Amino acid sequence: MEESAKDKLPRATAKRLPLYLRNLNILEAEGVIRIKSREFAEITKIPSATIRRDFSYLGELGRSGYGYDVPYLIEVFTALLEANEKKSIAIVGFGNLGRAIAKNNFRRNDNLAISCVFDNNPALVGKEITGFYVYDIRDLKRMVQEKNVSVVITTVPSENSQIVVDEIVASGVTAILNFSSDRVDIPKNVNMRYIDLTTELLTLVFFDHHYKNRPLVVTT
Amino acid sequence: MEESAKDKLPRATAKRLPLYLRNLNILEAEGVIRIKSREFAEITKIPSATIRRDFSYLGELGRSGYGYDVPYLIEVFTALLEANEKKSIAIVGFGNLGRAIAKNNFRRNDNLAISCVFDNNPALVGKEITGFYVYDIRDLKRMVQEKNVSVVITTVPSENSQIVVDEIVASGVTAILNFSSDRVDIPKNVNMRYIDLTTELLTLVFFDHHYKNRPLVVTT
Repeated sequence: MEESAKDKLPRATAKRLPLYLRNLNILEAEGVIRIKSREFAEITKIPSATIRRDFSYLGELGRSGYGYDVPYLIEVFTALLEANEKKSIAIVGFGNLGRAIAKNNFRRNDNLAISCVFDNNPALVGKEITGFYVYDIRDLKRMVQEKNVSVVITTVPSENSQIVVDEIVASGVTAILNFSSDRVDIPKNVNMRYIDLTTELLTLVFFDHHYKNRPLVVTT
Repeated sequence: MEESAKDKLPRATAKRLPLYLRNLNILEAEGVIRIKSREFAEITKIPSATIRRDFSYLGELGRSGYGYDVPYLIEVFTALLEANEKKSIAIVGFGNLGRAIAKNNFRRNDNLAISCVFDNNPALVGKEITGFYVYDIRDLKRMVQEKNVSVVITTVPSENSQIVVDEIVASGVTAILNFSSDRVDIPKNVNMRYIDLTTELLTLVFFDHHYKNRPLVVTT
């Protein structure tokens, strides 16, 4: 695919790519080498028309009546998501949530690896906790360069969120996953993604009450 | 608003409601009592046209040129999301992630409360950990009834996900938040929401590379 096609992908389509790739990898592991959009819709809970339209942006990935070639889709989507390139990830805030993420350490994807973790708590800094040496938050900029960090996950509470995000931005990282839901100011070149459990839960409760018998789409 | 209007809300709109409500509550706490769609768009990172359309489904919430009344919006959205009704939440899987969620315990919303936690690890069951008595997973059905649980959060690893989800479904709960990304089979009347950190991270990396200077929308 040309660079230009990639850059013209609708954002809604782009957001579904990781979900597609995840499910294709599961299918391949189960020995499935070909899949029709209708079958894939059942698995992903995304309407088959949406799947066909999404895939159409990416070129000739399948034929009508034949279905899609699973290994080929994986190849295309992996390249697109750069899922085969090593990403060095840092965690700021090494309480329960930080440790849970570190312990999981993206087992599903060998190319995502947590390379360093930070906290400002003197009781944690300088210690090794669940296999990770805890750096002082003041070492962030130096370690980002040393470990070639491209994504930072912050789990610090909302009252410190802006300060920490400012430090992350100052370190040169432009991709931040934020578990504190309060909005913070970031420069235009920085991409931030918030994960807010309260919002997730309220959405779930709402759908549970108002959309009975129409299961919720499983994207995150 | 009539029951019928609520039930006809587009799903995409419904999914944005918790984000709207969260930001409206922040605004009210800051003393803001009126807001224009353009200002609210800047805060939420959702296009103002989308906001106006979403709000229009809910009736006459604002006037052109005047803006929206913040306390009134909060009232309408809170009722719609049932955010003022007590929800009893259970956590299954009380490792690092379960404890992180329990510790946070939806501080932002007094009506969401974790009422009981479960594990199958004999080293944890029957003990009090971070303020929560850990029940055996076999007590799930009984405790769901006793504590009137309406939502279950599962943090168990993917290899046990289906078994645990089957138990949750058998307990009568129809709203499940699942931190294991593997798809599991559920009856049609059950609403499941998956939170998959690998997918979140890959999406973030993709946007960071391809959508520079167009910050990512902050919905979860």
